[in-house]
Amino acid sequence: MSFIVDFEPVGRRGEFSEDDTLLECARQLSVDLVSICGGAGSCERCKVQVIAGEVSELSFDEQFVLTENEVAQGYRLACRTYPLSDVKLHVPPESLTTPQRTQVEGLNVSVEVDPILVGVDVSLTPPTLESPKSDSMNLFSVLAEKGFQPSSIDYQVMKELPEVIRSNDWQINTAVRGEEVVAVGAPGTRWLGFAADIGTTKIAGYLMDLATGELLASKGMMNPQISYGEDVVSRIVIANKSLPDRDRLQAMLIEAINSTAVELCKEAGVSIDQVVEAVIVGNTAIHHLFVGLPVKQLGLAPYTAVEDQAIDIKGRELGLTFSPGAYVHLLPNIAGYVGADHVAMLLATRIADSHDTVLAIDIGTNTEICLTHEGKMTSVSCASGPAFEGAHIKHGMRAAPGAIEYVRLDNGKLEVQTIGGEPPVGICGSGILDVIAQLRKNEILEHSGKMVEHPQVRQNGTIKEFVLAERNGLEPITISQKDVRELQLAKGAIRLGIEALLENAGIDKDKLDHVIIAGAFGTFINVESAITIGMLPELPLERFSQVGNAAGTGARLALLSRRERAKASEIAARDGYIELAKVPRFNLRFAQATYM
Amino acid sequence: MSFIVDFEPVGRRGEFSEDDTLLECARQLSVDLVSICGGAGSCERCKVQVIAGEVSELSFDEQFVLTENEVAQGYRLACRTYPLSDVKLHVPPESLTTPQRTQVEGLNVSVEVDPILVGVDVSLTPPTLESPKSDSMNLFSVLAEKGFQPSSIDYQVMKELPEVIRSNDWQINTAVRGEEVVAVGAPGTRWLGFAADIGTTKIAGYLMDLATGELLASKGMMNPQISYGEDVVSRIVIANKSLPDRDRLQAMLIEAINSTAVELCKEAGVSIDQVVEAVIVGNTAIHHLFVGLPVKQLGLAPYTAVEDQAIDIKGRELGLTFSPGAYVHLLPNIAGYVGADHVAMLLATRIADSHDTVLAIDIGTNTEICLTHEGKMTSVSCASGPAFEGAHIKHGMRAAPGAIEYVRLDNGKLEVQTIGGEPPVGICGSGILDVIAQLRKNEILEHSGKMVEHPQVRQNGTIKEFVLAERNGLEPITISQKDVRELQLAKGAIRLGIEALLENAGIDKDKLDHVIIAGAFGTFINVESAITIGMLPELPLERFSQVGNAAGTGARLALLSRRERAKASEIAARDGYIELAKVPRFNLRFAQATYM
Repeated sequence: MSFIVDFEPVGRRGEFSEDDTLLECARQLSVDLVSICGGAGSCERCKVQVIAGEVSELSFDEQFVLTENEVAQGYRLACRTYPLSDVKLHVPPESLTTPQRTQVEGLNVSVEVDPILVGVDVSLTPPTLESPKSDSMNLFSVLAEKGFQPSSIDYQVMKELPEVIRSNDWQINTAVRGEEVVAVGAPGTRWLGFAADIGTTKIAGYLMDLATGELLASKGMMNPQISYGEDVVSRIVIANKSLPDRDRLQAMLIEAINSTAVELCKEAGVSIDQVVEAVIVGNTAIHHLFVGLPVKQLGLAPYTAVEDQAIDIKGRELGLTFSPGAYVHLLPNIAGYVGADHVAMLLATRIADSHDTVLAIDIGTNTEICLTHEGKMTSVSCASGPAFEGAHIKHGMRAAPGAIEYVRLDNGKLEVQTIGGEPPVGICGSGILDVIAQLRKNEILEHSGKMVEHPQVRQNGTIKEFVLAERNGLEPITISQKDVRELQLAKGAIRLGIEALLENAGIDKDKLDHVIIAGAFGTFINVESAITIGMLPELPLERFSQVGNAAGTGARLALLSRRERAKASEIAARDGYIELAKVPRFNLRFAQATYM
Repeated sequence: MSFIVDFEPVGRRGEFSEDDTLLECARQLSVDLVSICGGAGSCERCKVQVIAGEVSELSFDEQFVLTENEVAQGYRLACRTYPLSDVKLHVPPESLTTPQRTQVEGLNVSVEVDPILVGVDVSLTPPTLESPKSDSMNLFSVLAEKGFQPSSIDYQVMKELPEVIRSNDWQINTAVRGEEVVAVGAPGTRWLGFAADIGTTKIAGYLMDLATGELLASKGMMNPQISYGEDVVSRIVIANKSLPDRDRLQAMLIEAINSTAVELCKEAGVSIDQVVEAVIVGNTAIHHLFVGLPVKQLGLAPYTAVEDQAIDIKGRELGLTFSPGAYVHLLPNIAGYVGADHVAMLLATRIADSHDTVLAIDIGTNTEICLTHEGKMTSVSCASGPAFEGAHIKHGMRAAPGAIEYVRLDNGKLEVQTIGGEPPVGICGSGILDVIAQLRKNEILEHSGKMVEHPQVRQNGTIKEFVLAERNGLEPITISQKDVRELQLAKGAIRLGIEALLENAGIDKDKLDHVIIAGAFGTFINVESAITIGMLPELPLERFSQVGNAAGTGARLALLSRRERAKASEIAARDGYIELAKVPRFNLRFAQATYM
């Protein structure tokens, strides 16, 4: 038996059997349902509303998760529900991963444009019976006169060479990448580069002119792997299930990069065939999934990367649709949980060259922190978890329209702002940080995080919760004691990471000249709130800067400059790495760090 | 409408429409019909006998070609005939390209085994939380201790690395190829190499142990492109028709190499995954078709190669099924019609190092000749045509069972021997050479090649012919005046090539210390006959040597030794090249060279 499953308001429909969960249907239709646990039934986030048709009986899991009111309105968990007839579903905004704020803007760092690849105009002499030189020798001899001595031509480029030479009347342009000719084209061809920061949640792509360094276009999009789990650990679990699963996760990234590059080229009015070099950064797991490397050993102590050095791979081998001879360059990783994106961030923030004492923090599902002090760099990785992306928070959601992103509570007066000014549907990371800081300031939360009796605190079963917004016919949006605990775990991990670095360097927080907060989430948080809850060190506000997508900037630098590429490898090699779990009395220290 | 077309005695059948020529049917069923012209209706060699069923009417071309007797027996040209009902066909042996003699034996040249790739046993230390080194760094550091400093690991090898390391308890073997790790395996893995000489007609493949240089297995097979034309020019024409046509010709070679390699591995009891390096030689057109390069410019003066330097390509990129990280190395070409197979032959015959004056000849559809004199090497390419493969000769065929290969005529007594002692079905190259030499010796042919009146010469229409063998109910096998002319053109081209080289060096033929005859055809010819008809210079017989497949030997040398690889490039660069068409008074000289 097969049934039509219709997702609204996105308007996607397809035919499925009674053996397909609604989550599986959504995946196959590219409806981006939130699925933090990867369909394991534990994250309770893939809620959909059945508007018409019959579905399977309420599962055991769902009886625990859904309120009577929700069940009455037809809400179900997509991962636990099967169609029994044609069905029509409503997907509430908070269950959709898109649209969302993405972050492509980052630091603007000046760099001397000195890319690994240069375009050289050459004028060839047609061969004769007396001098029947091959096309390659012909090209090499003219390039040598110009001071370029490549030793090979990519074999895919060789395929085009005779036609390009003859259709351009023996005047061509050659993209020379060190020892290799990687592209040929008409005289004066403008060779382009593509850089991308692939985050666990979001992808930022950039199209650049390799000769001038000009940014032609940039674009953010969701990481499509999201529908297979919101944190990298979920994806590692899926990738380890089978090779086809791992291949599918890889294919999603490749497809995302291809479509991003095509859209950027369209926007800039250029051809994808002009893109002859790419730089990709991501955390170590994303890096491995992108290349198609095994991630099994990344999921187990001691969290070993397969490869941590910078690597160059022909894009075509990965299925990337750039110019056929294009390489993709992956910046080095530092450790299993300190990846190339962290290296790129360190490159962009220039802290490797700083004589100051600087702390650089990239907050995310995994938070990487680096301290530079007296020329020495040390990094730490903290499993801060996806709470900032709204996961494990009852009404948490990612930074999509309708998410509460700003909260103030003064003298009992509550002020709430949502993204896009829409009616509230949930609360995103910066909002959660704000509300908890406000509750702490107003002594509604104790030092330990315990919620006290208060007129605006209500009891919901055994759990206290603070009501943020009432909704018509639906549960009000609240922050519960449990949510506070989740955030305490996240902020505690970051705080402990910072403490570990300061102690390792033997310095006090006051020695910090500068604290850099990078990454999309870091861009939108209120630093004061973060200080209030004890996530960031208490320092004058002017010492903090929020720099946006620094990893993307680092990728762009490595695209434009051989020196920057070399510097990235130097940073990866120089950067000392502390394993947080090895901090003495870790459990006690961590518990203390969760206090506010 | 569709019909069953049945080829006997091969016993292949399939369903086809009335729009498919019988040649097309044969191709699709992999029945290797001779097709010198590639189906253009001009070579008259794809004769088949219709045993049952209806076919299209006799075409205009066929009326010229087939005798009344043949037509009565149901003989047709497969390329001009279409099925009109289910049909059953008999394919006479002379119309089949297989089985045939192939030549894998060649010179045995001793060489110091020093391959580009070495296997290194390494013992790794498992990472810990204190020292969470990546698998690649782990490997590199141990290799460095052993004096190996690769800078990268093939990304396909990276995919296997974690599992290979862990399943072998941190003891593995690494195939290091200069800067790159191209394979990993269990400790003590025996890494193998594959060498092949891809001729226009035949392929010779060799499986070798890279550490010891031992030849594990060797095998000859037909070049499957044969069914798309017997000479390279026909294939260039087909490849130029469209990209899918060129791709199909490439795929045939790749498939042939893959199946040869698999069979060799099976014979040697090893796994194809142990094959980590390959060397391929072939003429320039075959080289280009193998790599997938355009051949359009090879077919037009000045016959320009796209690439003439040695190249390395990942085998997987071409669809080769060796170990995933294996490279295929292609030896350099010299010119559009002097290819890597000639370079390999020069390498194997050691004439580059000789202080003697030596002529080396590789006779084939295209004949390449090299003269070494006073340390200077010069080559020439002669379009000798496919006459030696039996093409354009009325009863010509390739060296298959039943082919007349030896002829003596003493005092009017004719002695004829066939391959395998089978009843005669045609005459192969060495037989043609023999019979023409015997006719010349017995003055049945004049100096000019004119056939005189003679009791054993009969008149067939306007053409004289010498009867070699009568056949029951079929046309007798003859050599006609026209066949003699064809052979004169072939031998004239070779003779003029030799003369041009001697003149270029300013020496007389008597100065030649040694004449080396390489290649499968050259192995089987009677040197005396070749001298008699003036193809080879008149010199004492002891100065000649027939060395078999020297190109295959050269490929094996390049597989086993980096020095030999470098020498091949040196030979290609050193070898002077004369364009035969540029010889002064070419037409007159060529006409003279055809005399006997």
